[in-house]
Amino acid sequence: MDREIHFRMAAEQDLDKVVEMLADDVLGSKREKYEQPLPESYLKAFQAISSDPNNELIIAYQGEEIIGVQQITFTPYITHQGGWRATIEGVRTARTYRDKGIGTALIQWAIKRAKARGCHLIQLTTDKDRQDALRFYQRLGFKATHEGLKMKL
Amino acid sequence: MDREIHFRMAAEQDLDKVVEMLADDVLGSKREKYEQPLPESYLKAFQAISSDPNNELIIAYQGEEIIGVQQITFTPYITHQGGWRATIEGVRTARTYRDKGIGTALIQWAIKRAKARGCHLIQLTTDKDRQDALRFYQRLGFKATHEGLKMKL
Repeated sequence: MDREIHFRMAAEQDLDKVVEMLADDVLGSKREKYEQPLPESYLKAFQAISSDPNNELIIAYQGEEIIGVQQITFTPYITHQGGWRATIEGVRTARTYRDKGIGTALIQWAIKRAKARGCHLIQLTTDKDRQDALRFYQRLGFKATHEGLKMKL
Repeated sequence: MDREIHFRMAAEQDLDKVVEMLADDVLGSKREKYEQPLPESYLKAFQAISSDPNNELIIAYQGEEIIGVQQITFTPYITHQGGWRATIEGVRTARTYRDKGIGTALIQWAIKRAKARGCHLIQLTTDKDRQDALRFYQRLGFKATHEGLKMKL
């Protein structure tokens, strides 16, 4: 079997596996709804992402197996002399593939993609309850210079 | 003079004032370039924002005076059952109008706008060096639940 990790844009038929991965997580299990049929809100979000040139839902795969996912958003800002940024969200590795460097490969791919899109900065927020994730991103070179503030509406 | 604070989408002729406000700030002065003519990168960013239905550069004004600015980005995510989020960035009040509640009015306007766009969450990151800003956002109801990680590319 091909052990190399490949990346591609997600297709609609990947959505079930994507939601399964997002739900299979301490925090994700509280907020996702992985059931059959999948709640329509996921499909609508997928369609909004797919039709937006500044949003990319990225699948990592090995052979025919989907093993990871992440979403990258590219945003033009006036700040930093009109610089584009990439924002990463919803990074997840399939349970049986964790601790094999797949998260690292996903983020390194996102960094490369952000550079190719001309971004001067790549950013993300991580829940303060995810201390392992914080260390993981710091090892990859991210600096925790900012507070990530959220408000539910 | 009309003392009420009004809001509207920024037009290209506002860009000079917007960059002046962004540059007139401890951190902004290090990274912005407010000069005449304005560096073209600002205009390109403005055009990218204006042509993107998911990005809004918002001007606060009183009478004919521009007194504040913020950018709001609306993003469809697969996470949170396919929920949309609003992200605020580049919030600034003109120097002579600070400490008059204009920042509060800007953020409250952004919250209202995010709800109108169907977002389930509004978020922003603020530099840990801006302790006043952190308290300001917390007073408005934001929770500092996340680490904001950045990497320069």
